[in-house]
Amino acid sequence: MQTELSKQLHVEHALFGFTPFPAVAAAISRAGGFGVLGAVRYTAPDELERDLDWLDAHAGGRPYGLDVVMPARKVEGVTEADVEAMIPEGHRRFVAETLAKHGVPELAEGDAVGWRITGWMEEVARRQLDVAFDRPIRLLANALGSPPPDIVARAHEQGVLVAALAGSARHAVKHRDGGIDIVVAQGYEAGGHTGEIASMVLTPEVVEAVGPLPVLAAGGIGSGEQVAAALALGAQGVWLGSLWLTTTEADLHSPALTRKLLAAGSGDTVRSRALTGKPARQLRTEWTDAWEGPEGPGTLPMPLQGLLVADAISRIQKYEVEPLLGTPVGQIVGRMNSERSVQAVVDDLTRGFERAVDRINRIAGRSEQP
Amino acid sequence: MQTELSKQLHVEHALFGFTPFPAVAAAISRAGGFGVLGAVRYTAPDELERDLDWLDAHAGGRPYGLDVVMPARKVEGVTEADVEAMIPEGHRRFVAETLAKHGVPELAEGDAVGWRITGWMEEVARRQLDVAFDRPIRLLANALGSPPPDIVARAHEQGVLVAALAGSARHAVKHRDGGIDIVVAQGYEAGGHTGEIASMVLTPEVVEAVGPLPVLAAGGIGSGEQVAAALALGAQGVWLGSLWLTTTEADLHSPALTRKLLAAGSGDTVRSRALTGKPARQLRTEWTDAWEGPEGPGTLPMPLQGLLVADAISRIQKYEVEPLLGTPVGQIVGRMNSERSVQAVVDDLTRGFERAVDRINRIAGRSEQP
Repeated sequence: MQTELSKQLHVEHALFGFTPFPAVAAAISRAGGFGVLGAVRYTAPDELERDLDWLDAHAGGRPYGLDVVMPARKVEGVTEADVEAMIPEGHRRFVAETLAKHGVPELAEGDAVGWRITGWMEEVARRQLDVAFDRPIRLLANALGSPPPDIVARAHEQGVLVAALAGSARHAVKHRDGGIDIVVAQGYEAGGHTGEIASMVLTPEVVEAVGPLPVLAAGGIGSGEQVAAALALGAQGVWLGSLWLTTTEADLHSPALTRKLLAAGSGDTVRSRALTGKPARQLRTEWTDAWEGPEGPGTLPMPLQGLLVADAISRIQKYEVEPLLGTPVGQIVGRMNSERSVQAVVDDLTRGFERAVDRINRIAGRSEQP
Repeated sequence: MQTELSKQLHVEHALFGFTPFPAVAAAISRAGGFGVLGAVRYTAPDELERDLDWLDAHAGGRPYGLDVVMPARKVEGVTEADVEAMIPEGHRRFVAETLAKHGVPELAEGDAVGWRITGWMEEVARRQLDVAFDRPIRLLANALGSPPPDIVARAHEQGVLVAALAGSARHAVKHRDGGIDIVVAQGYEAGGHTGEIASMVLTPEVVEAVGPLPVLAAGGIGSGEQVAAALALGAQGVWLGSLWLTTTEADLHSPALTRKLLAAGSGDTVRSRALTGKPARQLRTEWTDAWEGPEGPGTLPMPLQGLLVADAISRIQKYEVEPLLGTPVGQIVGRMNSERSVQAVVDDLTRGFERAVDRINRIAGRSEQP
C-alpha cells in the first residue's frame, strides 16, 4: 500500500494513526504505519517531553508525528483565568445539577483534572511545539485550521511536514494557501470535530480542490475495504483515530469506557457541541442528551465550553459514571468489537485492502479469478 | 463493471439509476445501466400506465424497474380526508404566513397540485402496483421499509426482484427476513429520506449483516471513483438518484431549480423533516430554514406533513419563488455543475471507475505503471 506520500515519509503503509497514547503511536509506526501523538491532553511541557522521548525510543527507528490544537488567530493577552470569568453562572449551575442528578462525587483534594482543554490555548500549544521541534518529529498536524505562518515556516526549516484537518474544500484551499503540505479531509462520520459533509463526498472534493497536494481521508475508516475505498477516492492515505481506542496498547484508564466502546453500534454516536463548543462526534450519553435536551442552557463557544466541562468530565471519568461516560469517537465504533493489538489491527487493514483490490479487479474484469 | 447482480439482471454496468422521469429511466437502461422509475408523483393509475408503456418502448429492450413508496404497516380504513383533518390549524397558518412573507401567489383555479404526497398512501401504491405488475418490470423497489408480504410474494411469482432501502444494518436484516432480494444501503449523504450513518460506514455494515444478499450503495455517489469506492466496500452496484436531476433528459419544469442545483455546493443541503415528516436531505432554502427556525411550529409526522405542504410546494414550484425553491437531493449536488446527457454521465462513471481501478492497482503494487 504505497502512495507518493508514504514513499516520501518512508513508511510501509499509507496508514496514519492519530492517538493520545505514546504506546499506540509507537506501535503504529513499528507496524509500518505512521503514528501521530495527540498533544492536546498535555498541559505541562515536561510531560510531553517525557512522552515524546519514550515514543522516539520505542518507534523502532520509524518516523512519527505530533498533533496539536492551535488556533490560527491569536487572541492577545487572554489567559485561562480571563476565559473562566466569561462563563455564565447558569451554565455552571446546569453542570452541577446534571452531575448531582447522577450522584457524581467531587474530585478528591489534590486530584488532577485529567481531562483538560487547555491544550486548545495557543500559549500552551506553543510551549508544546518548543518541545516537539527539539525532537525528530517528521509531521506536525493541527486539528483546528491552519497553524500560524511562523509555525509553518519553523516546521519547514526543520524538514517537518505540516498537516491540517479540513471539513470542506474551502477550508482545504485555505490550508494550501497557508503553506500546508498535507490536508486531512475529515468527514462527517469521523470522531471529534467534524463538519457535515461525509467522507464519500468530501474526500474527492478536497482532492480536486488542492491536488496535487496530498490528501488523507479521515472519518469512517476501520477496515481494509474502507482504506481501499478512500484510496479509490483519490486520497494518498488514511488518517485513523477512533480505531486505536480499543487496542491493547491504548490506556483509557476506564474499563467501563472500553466496554461501552466495544458494545457501541455505528448509530450510538452524536455530533455535539457539549465537549468543546464546536460540533464533535462522540459517544451518545446521558451527558450529551442533557445538553441537547429542553432544559439544557445551550453550549458556549470554544474555548469556554471546554473549560466549563473539564472538571465534570474528569469526575465522570474518575468514578466511571456509566450513563454519562463518553469519549470522542467516530461512527466506525460499530466495528470496534474486540480488543486487539495495534499490529493485529494493521494486519487486518492491509489484508482487507488486498481483498478489496482483488474484488474490484474481478468486477472490472481484470483478473482470471471467478 | 460486472457483479453477480448485474449479470443476473443482464445489464452492462452495475449502475442503478432512480429517477422520477421516464425519459431518464429509459436513457439509463439504454446506456447499459438499470433505470428505475419513481412512482411517488403519480396519483392517477392511467398516467403511470402511460409512462410505463413509454418507458418500455424507449428502453431499447433493456431491463428497468419501478420504485414505489409503500408502508409495511397498513392503517385500516384511513383516507386522505381523514389524514387532512388531523393537521392542526396553527401549522396551516404557519405555511400561509411563510408563503405570504415571500409573496407566493395562489394556484389558479383548475391548477393541478403538481407535487403530491398521496403516492405515500398504501391505497395509491397498490393501484400503482396493479399497473406495474401487468408490465415487464424486472425490479420493484420500496423506499420506506419492506413492502407487505403479499406484494413480495406477487413480485416473486412474476420473476420480479424486490429491493428495499435501509439506513441501518438492523433495517437491512428486517428486509432480508421479509424476503427482499436486494438491499439499498442509503447513507446519510444521500438525497431524500436518510438516516445518520454515512455510506463509508453503512455500506460494509449492511453487506456484512445481510450478505450474500446483494447490496447497492446509495448516497454520495456521482463519479466513477465513488462507484469504485462503493464496490470496494462490498456493494454489488450503486444506486444513483440525485445525479440525474441535471441531465438533459430530466424535466424539472423549472429553469430556476436547475440553476440552483447546478450552483449548489456539497454543503448546501440539509436533512429536514419539512417535506414529508421524516428526515429527508434536500436543498437548503428559506423554506427549510423557516421550519428549523424559532418561529416554526415543528413538523408533523408522515403523512401529515406531506399533505400539509403539498399545495405550498406546488405554488413555490409553479411560480419559481427562488428563495423557497428546493428539491430532495444529496450532498453529491456539489459535483452536479453542468447539464449533460444521461449517456455522458454513464460514460463519465465508467471511465472514472477504470481510472480508480488503475490507481488502486498502482497503490497495491499490482501494475507496472509509474
